[in-house]
Amino acid sequence: MRVKALERNGDSLRIIDQTRLPLDVVYCDLRSLDEIIEAIKQLRVRGAPAIGIAAAYALPIAVAASGKCDVGAVTKFGERLKAARPTAVNLFWAVDRMVSCLTDSEPRNTDDAVRLLWVEAERIHEEDRRMCENIGRHGAELIKKNDRILTHCNAGALATGGIGTALGVIYICHQQGKKNHVYMDETRPLLQGARLTAWELSQEGITATLICDSVAGMLMRQGKIDRVLVGADRIARNGDTANKIGTYSLAVLAREHGVPFYVAAPSSTFDDNILSGEDIPIEERASEEVTKGFGSVTAPEGIDVYSPAFDITPNSLITAFITDKGIRPGGRSA
Amino acid sequence: MRVKALERNGDSLRIIDQTRLPLDVVYCDLRSLDEIIEAIKQLRVRGAPAIGIAAAYALPIAVAASGKCDVGAVTKFGERLKAARPTAVNLFWAVDRMVSCLTDSEPRNTDDAVRLLWVEAERIHEEDRRMCENIGRHGAELIKKNDRILTHCNAGALATGGIGTALGVIYICHQQGKKNHVYMDETRPLLQGARLTAWELSQEGITATLICDSVAGMLMRQGKIDRVLVGADRIARNGDTANKIGTYSLAVLAREHGVPFYVAAPSSTFDDNILSGEDIPIEERASEEVTKGFGSVTAPEGIDVYSPAFDITPNSLITAFITDKGIRPGGRSA
Repeated sequence: MRVKALERNGDSLRIIDQTRLPLDVVYCDLRSLDEIIEAIKQLRVRGAPAIGIAAAYALPIAVAASGKCDVGAVTKFGERLKAARPTAVNLFWAVDRMVSCLTDSEPRNTDDAVRLLWVEAERIHEEDRRMCENIGRHGAELIKKNDRILTHCNAGALATGGIGTALGVIYICHQQGKKNHVYMDETRPLLQGARLTAWELSQEGITATLICDSVAGMLMRQGKIDRVLVGADRIARNGDTANKIGTYSLAVLAREHGVPFYVAAPSSTFDDNILSGEDIPIEERASEEVTKGFGSVTAPEGIDVYSPAFDITPNSLITAFITDKGIRPGGRSA
Repeated sequence: MRVKALERNGDSLRIIDQTRLPLDVVYCDLRSLDEIIEAIKQLRVRGAPAIGIAAAYALPIAVAASGKCDVGAVTKFGERLKAARPTAVNLFWAVDRMVSCLTDSEPRNTDDAVRLLWVEAERIHEEDRRMCENIGRHGAELIKKNDRILTHCNAGALATGGIGTALGVIYICHQQGKKNHVYMDETRPLLQGARLTAWELSQEGITATLICDSVAGMLMRQGKIDRVLVGADRIARNGDTANKIGTYSLAVLAREHGVPFYVAAPSSTFDDNILSGEDIPIEERASEEVTKGFGSVTAPEGIDVYSPAFDITPNSLITAFITDKGIRPGGRSA
């Protein structure tokens, strides 16, 4: 896998600036908590697992810069990170784990705390890398040779610390010579499918076709989609899943056409503190992302816009969850 | 109704250039067959009924310019018009009617033919204007006070010779003081919802909210949509309906959520020569409309794109057709 969304670079966090893809491949070294928070808010780094890893790396950087390593201070750094984006649970999970690491290990001084936090952040990153591999291996068992797979948004290397979740499955199938064809929704408003998934797949030499989000239903009706494979930003205890806006519609369409609908996600995406999808907070994005997305103004000034970043797919529409621990059945009967 | 998509202006056809909306309101006088064909191909004038009217006006202009008024010549002009866009049947209907008018009336010379053709084109335009009014009146009977209506693409004044089809219903309800709220899909790739419907509704003082196409399912699940109201480009004898890509998905979602799904269209959109939706040709658009839509390049160079302009909604998903002659039940049981 050539594509790396983020990695430690000495005392900083190196990311690909995903707002610049696919035209420019620009790496940035983020050297402060503020820079990392800004990168998460602006979606320079995005994807639930990658956001969690970025937040983990932010903490040794914040402690080193401030010279403060008491739990109160680190918790405050963590709160600021958690406030950057509300829906993906991996962010909260990673911050809480970093704070626990500090309280458990009782560092003697700031240098000691910084070192411990770097180790823990790298451990989280490495675990995510392995979870992606495992998701890929488990998921590949569900995919047949020549299956045509529809995916939404970007649940790939750019969204994780490894080969991705939904796209991780596709990469493993590719290695296994299964010759799958990928259809990817462009994923309005921010076009993560067109900009990121299309770029990432092309880097790995996988053939794929880009469609507007509204084309998926027609393709399913034509019998051209064998599986739908998406990632997740948060999964409630009952299996309800928050993922990029449009996922719910795909799940309804998939059931209508008898197409299996799979959600691929690492353990860090499952939030057992939340009973059902109704309790998952949904981020709303700025109207300009819709009305002035990529250059021109494309709507009348002052028009009211509703732009949720995510929607909830009820467990009843999900055929199975592909996790690092194996396949877990969803609520949709085959 | 302040908005007029097109009208006769002396010996030319005046249109609003819809590719320039909403930023610039530019009127163009089209003075030749070539200019009108180009305007139809480039979607400067679009919407099934408006395309038909534009084609009708093109014929007196073509006859006057060429000095030829024999049926062979006029049929050839008509064939060129018909080749401009394949899906909307109103184009074929209008051209055939113009040619019939000529053969029926046997003009003595070119001037006579030109005059006859202008009269027939204006008659087609006036009939469309009245059909829109009637669609609006009939449709309004289906809409309750405060209903929240979802529409797709632009089936308004900009798409017709009058107040529109789907939006015509909304305008009549507005006159009746029904205080409906409109949600409009932006309608990728060419954003007719964001650029045209949003502009047109704002010109008429109707409150509306713009959403990405992928948001519609979530809104229905939240119980925020009471009706879906769309236009049509061609309706087969069995009720299968070609309309803007994404319509089919909306129809599946509407049934899933018990939301009535209405297709509003004038008589000229019904094509009794075609048995079912399978026989309706679907136009494919250039990949650049997806990858380089509005300024920036938003996908990797050379990516494969599938961009059908329309899809087919089977009659079984349609609650009712709103036509100029009244309400006709669709195949979906309430």
